[in-house]
Amino acid sequence: MELGLIGLGRMGANMARRLILGGHRVVAFDLDARAVAACAEYGAEGAGSLAELVSLLAPPRAVWLMLPHGPVTEDAVSAVSPLLSPGDVILDGGNTNYKDSIRRGQELAEWSIDFVDVGISGGIWGLTNGFCLMVGGPDETVKRLEPAFRSLAPSETAGYSHLGPNGAGHYVKMVHNAVEYALMEAYAEGFELLAAKEEFDLDLAAIAETWRHGAVVRSWLLDLAAAALKEDPGLESLQAFVEDSGEGRWTVQESVDLAVPVPAITAALQQRFRSRQEGPLGAKLLAALRQQFGGHAVRRTGD
Amino acid sequence: MELGLIGLGRMGANMARRLILGGHRVVAFDLDARAVAACAEYGAEGAGSLAELVSLLAPPRAVWLMLPHGPVTEDAVSAVSPLLSPGDVILDGGNTNYKDSIRRGQELAEWSIDFVDVGISGGIWGLTNGFCLMVGGPDETVKRLEPAFRSLAPSETAGYSHLGPNGAGHYVKMVHNAVEYALMEAYAEGFELLAAKEEFDLDLAAIAETWRHGAVVRSWLLDLAAAALKEDPGLESLQAFVEDSGEGRWTVQESVDLAVPVPAITAALQQRFRSRQEGPLGAKLLAALRQQFGGHAVRRTGD
Repeated sequence: MELGLIGLGRMGANMARRLILGGHRVVAFDLDARAVAACAEYGAEGAGSLAELVSLLAPPRAVWLMLPHGPVTEDAVSAVSPLLSPGDVILDGGNTNYKDSIRRGQELAEWSIDFVDVGISGGIWGLTNGFCLMVGGPDETVKRLEPAFRSLAPSETAGYSHLGPNGAGHYVKMVHNAVEYALMEAYAEGFELLAAKEEFDLDLAAIAETWRHGAVVRSWLLDLAAAALKEDPGLESLQAFVEDSGEGRWTVQESVDLAVPVPAITAALQQRFRSRQEGPLGAKLLAALRQQFGGHAVRRTGD
Repeated sequence: MELGLIGLGRMGANMARRLILGGHRVVAFDLDARAVAACAEYGAEGAGSLAELVSLLAPPRAVWLMLPHGPVTEDAVSAVSPLLSPGDVILDGGNTNYKDSIRRGQELAEWSIDFVDVGISGGIWGLTNGFCLMVGGPDETVKRLEPAFRSLAPSETAGYSHLGPNGAGHYVKMVHNAVEYALMEAYAEGFELLAAKEEFDLDLAAIAETWRHGAVVRSWLLDLAAAALKEDPGLESLQAFVEDSGEGRWTVQESVDLAVPVPAITAALQQRFRSRQEGPLGAKLLAALRQQFGGHAVRRTGD
C-alpha cells in the first residue's frame, strides 16, 4: 500500500525504511530537508511540503505522523487535515496522551476523516527487530491499514494488535512505557546494591552477562544493560541524570484517577525526578529539622 | 566428573537430570525414597543414606546440597561434613542467606573442607533452558567444578560466572531475586491499570502477547505472564495471595545496612505482604481517623 509519513526523526526514518523494505510506497516529509533527502536515498519519495505530500497520494490517503507529542502533533493535524478528503485517515504514531487521541478521533470524524492512534515500541532497534504496534481506531480503517502494520511489526503474525477504539492504542503504549520505567528501576536498584557491596568487589558487567542466560530476570532491557556495562563497567562516563518524556507522569496521574495502586511505577518516576536534583531543599529541611529537635550535626555548605 | 546430590525436589531433580545428560556421574540422595527412585530411572545412582552417598564417591568428593535454606541446609551440612575428608567440597545451591554461606565457608575450612555457594536461577524451566549459576568460593575449587557448572548452564560459554569468594554467589542470587520481585511488580501494576480502564475493555492476553514481540518490555517473565493470561484471561482461578521465600526481605534489610535506596524493590516486597492481608488493621485505623477528625463516613463490618 502507500503512505505519507510526516516526521523523519529516529523512529520515523526507521519506519519509512522498514515500510519500503516491506514493499510499500512511502511519501515522506520533514521540516528538515536533509532528513527528507536521507529518506529518499533508500527509496522514499520526498515531499517539499504537506500539500505536496498529500498531492502525491491517491485517495483514500493514509498520512502517518511521527512527531513529538503535544503542540507539534496538534499543529500538524491542524495543518494537514484541511488538505485531506473524506475517507482519508490520519495515523499518530507518537507518544501522544490517549486523551488527545480520543479527542482527535472525534474532531476528525466531523470532517469524515478517520483517525488511528498507534503506540509504537522498539526504539532505534525497530528497523532490525521490527516494531511493536498497539493500535486504537475504527475497525474497518484499521483493517485497511494492516498490510503496513504487519510490515512494521517483527513478523507477519506477531507484535501488532488492534486493541480497541481511538485512545486504546496510546493508552496501552502509555502503560507499556510506565512498566518500562519500573523494569528499568528494578535493574538500577539491583546493580546499585551489587556495586555497594564493596567486600565482594563484584564485576557488574559479568553479572549482567551471566543473568542474560537462563536467569529469571533475563530480558531485552537486561541485554541493553549488559551492553552498557561491558562498554563502561562503572558507567563513569555518564551523569546520574535521567530524563522522562511524559508517559510515566500520565500513568501515575491515571492511577490516581482510577485509584489503582502502582507503588513501583510511582517510585520509578520519583527516582527520575530525584536524579535531576542537586542539593534538594527537601533534604536540607530534613537535616535542619533533625538539628532543631535533636541537636544532630548538619553538613554546612562549604564544609 | 562425579557429584553427590542431596535434595531431589523440583530444582535438584532437574539438575541431576541435566548433569547426567552432560555425561557426569550423579549419586543422589533424598529423605523421600521415591524421589531417589525417580532420579535413578534417568541414570542417577541412588543412595539410601548420606553415608552411602559419601561412600559411593571417590575423593576429592563434591557433595551438592539442593535443600530449603535455613535449618534444613544447616542440619545437612552438619550431618555430611563429618563423613567427608580434607579436600572434599560441599556446594550449596539453595537460596541460602549469603551471610550463612560466608560463615559456612569459614567453619568448613577448619576441617579442610571447601565450600562453594551457588546461586541458581531458572526455576522449573532449567532442565530445558539450562540454569544460570552465580558462584562464590575459592578459585581452585571452583575451577575444578567447572565441568559440572558448564553442563548445568544454558551453554558451555554462557550463564555461569565465578563472582568472588564465599558469599558472593548467594549475594548476587539474593539481589537477582529482589530484581525479579520488582520486575514482576512492574508487570503486575501495568496489567492492573490496563484491566481497570473499563472503557477500553482491553484484552490483557492479547496485549501481553503483542508486547512479547518488538516491545521494549519484552522479557522471559513477560513470556510467562502471556502464557498465564492466555490460559486464564482474567486470572479468575487464582487468589490474590502472593508468598515470598526470603530473598526480597534480605535484600531490603541489606539496603538498610548499606543505606542504598531501593524504593521499587521495597514496594514490590510490601505489596506481597499486603496481598496476604484481609481487612488489615492499618486500613481500619485510617478510616477511623478520617471519621474522628472530619466526620467522614466509614464502612462498618456487616454493612
